[in-house]
Amino acid sequence: MSVRASESIPTEEVKAGSGTRRQVLIGSDVGPNFALRRFIMEPGGGMPLHTNEVEHEQYVLRGQARVRIGGEEHRVKAGDVVYIPGGTPHSYNAEGDEPFEFLCVVPNGPDRIELVDC
Amino acid sequence: MSVRASESIPTEEVKAGSGTRRQVLIGSDVGPNFALRRFIMEPGGGMPLHTNEVEHEQYVLRGQARVRIGGEEHRVKAGDVVYIPGGTPHSYNAEGDEPFEFLCVVPNGPDRIELVDC
Repeated sequence: MSVRASESIPTEEVKAGSGTRRQVLIGSDVGPNFALRRFIMEPGGGMPLHTNEVEHEQYVLRGQARVRIGGEEHRVKAGDVVYIPGGTPHSYNAEGDEPFEFLCVVPNGPDRIELVDC
Repeated sequence: MSVRASESIPTEEVKAGSGTRRQVLIGSDVGPNFALRRFIMEPGGGMPLHTNEVEHEQYVLRGQARVRIGGEEHRVKAGDVVYIPGGTPHSYNAEGDEPFEFLCVVPNGPDRIELVDC
């Protein structure tokens, strides 16, 4: 690939979340070091508190959400930049009237998602 | 950092371009593997044909441009995803009435930009 419209890329349900879909915009089959994904969470949807082994570098495209990172809760909105270190518990709760959409870059390689009791 | 508004992050002029500014949204001082940057090109601005040693994974936030990648020229617009392999000559020419803005993820580590005669 060199140029693709993101609307043409299939979405898949994120089973660990609710009302949450994911697109792999540039996967590990293309980029040698990291993958670019887009998440789309319907208002009221999101993901419960969990950890990943890998870090997340994120950019919010649309909407708003409450995002917990470690012990802090943040209200994030379009244009915000979010960094979540590997191993840090985090959750998403989409709020407002429109979908909460964000890009999320992760390094290639194995990852494991673990839900955190809360 | 965990959450920052991108508007609060300083911009710097990209000397190899014209009418082009750059923000380091998440730098190598924060992310262990890759950096997230935003480029903003005024209409009529852009960057001449050049190579980088590293690959680019990009997402267009706003506006439109002609982007040459290797031997092909593409018209790209908001929502498009662009992959430029390391070492591939590429250029940007912002078009239309609004700034051309895109995110660009690169791996941490040394890079060298070289202009290409054309």
